[in-house]
Amino acid sequence: MNITVTPGRKIIGRLAKGEDLLAALENCAREHGITLGEVQAIGAVTKARVGYYNQTERKYYFLDLARPLEILSLTGNISLKDGKPMVHAHVTLSDHDGLALGGHLAEGTLAFACEFAIQEYKSATPLVRQMDDPTGLFLWPYK
Amino acid sequence: MNITVTPGRKIIGRLAKGEDLLAALENCAREHGITLGEVQAIGAVTKARVGYYNQTERKYYFLDLARPLEILSLTGNISLKDGKPMVHAHVTLSDHDGLALGGHLAEGTLAFACEFAIQEYKSATPLVRQMDDPTGLFLWPYK
Amino acid sequence: MNITVTPGRKIIGRLAKGEDLLAALENCAREHGITLGEVQAIGAVTKARVGYYNQTERKYYFLDLARPLEILSLTGNISLKDGKPMVHAHVTLSDHDGLALGGHLAEGTLAFACEFAIQEYKSATPLVRQMDDPTGLFLWPYK
Repeated sequence: MNITVTPGRKIIGRLAKGEDLLAALENCAREHGITLGEVQAIGAVTKARVGYYNQTERKYYFLDLARPLEILSLTGNISLKDGKPMVHAHVTLSDHDGLALGGHLAEGTLAFACEFAIQEYKSATPLVRQMDDPTGLFLWPYK
Repeated sequence: MNITVTPGRKIIGRLAKGEDLLAALENCAREHGITLGEVQAIGAVTKARVGYYNQTERKYYFLDLARPLEILSLTGNISLKDGKPMVHAHVTLSDHDGLALGGHLAEGTLAFACEFAIQEYKSATPLVRQMDDPTGLFLWPYK
Repeated sequence: MNITVTPGRKIIGRLAKGEDLLAALENCAREHGITLGEVQAIGAVTKARVGYYNQTERKYYFLDLARPLEILSLTGNISLKDGKPMVHAHVTLSDHDGLALGGHLAEGTLAFACEFAIQEYKSATPLVRQMDDPTGLFLWPYK
């Protein structure tokens, strides 16, 4: 499955200390009515919560990293789920020894400082997440 | 060396479970006739194969990570090599403990789920990879 | 704080072996008069110097990684500080075992090979870094 899209608005900004990254980015998309797009960020968090999907059990496990970490990269997309803009993002973090950690960005990841960019796309047809049988995940339609 | 380019098409989509990431992204570029561009992706793989370039021996070593991993980021570019579009991408992965791993994306990295975006660039002159003596790699011309 | 911007020039290129990543990217932005934008890169370094910000002590600690590493991702932005374009970037690296490391990109990170892309943004008002009391960092204004 692939579609050709055209660029819409580009929004750049930063989060305040203490904001929940996933909630704040999703709110930004919803406030601007962005239903399709990309998100990127760097910065640091006071703590993080990241998911790992067990492909055999078809179930997310979450890892709480209850310490300050740099955000080496946060990269993701915006599309529709249940009629609302949803942010799907993965995050790479690093600790005081430079060791990198990461996973699927979950609520509970709190900004220390975070600079983000959201790129809206325009598409003739909306991109809507649906349950995908081979994976057990809500994905875009394949064909 | 740097050139100013203008944006072309933007293609977003996902891969099916089992597709080879590098081959599939390269095929997508070739099918659309994209000879210059950028690629980004997130998702998960059932297994990965990544390269590390030994700068002294001027030789790639490949690491097989034969287990399910999240794709924290996949970032790369598209340009011409031997007259055909070539994807050069690096990938950051994470395991069930959140530990991050990665390297030069090689064939043998298989999608579990993968959401990608390809941005085409237009340029007055094509960007062609050529053997670079100081590194032993196929790089863009420096001047 | 968030602002809507429009795309400006896109510059892609590569660095020569031995160039300092942060200085070279910042020079590129300054030479082209880019005061707001994004930067992305992949490649490899002969050595790296990355920062970790201690949020309690409000102080950067730097880590010297004096060995060849792949650049898995380099992602950052360009804005004004003290009247000049400043690059703020974070970098994810990997070693010969595929282990990922990273942090705030500091001077002293030297390219082996590095392919970069700079996207300029145009904005009605400039984005200027100022001391932020809650974090002790030079950040964009929040409101």
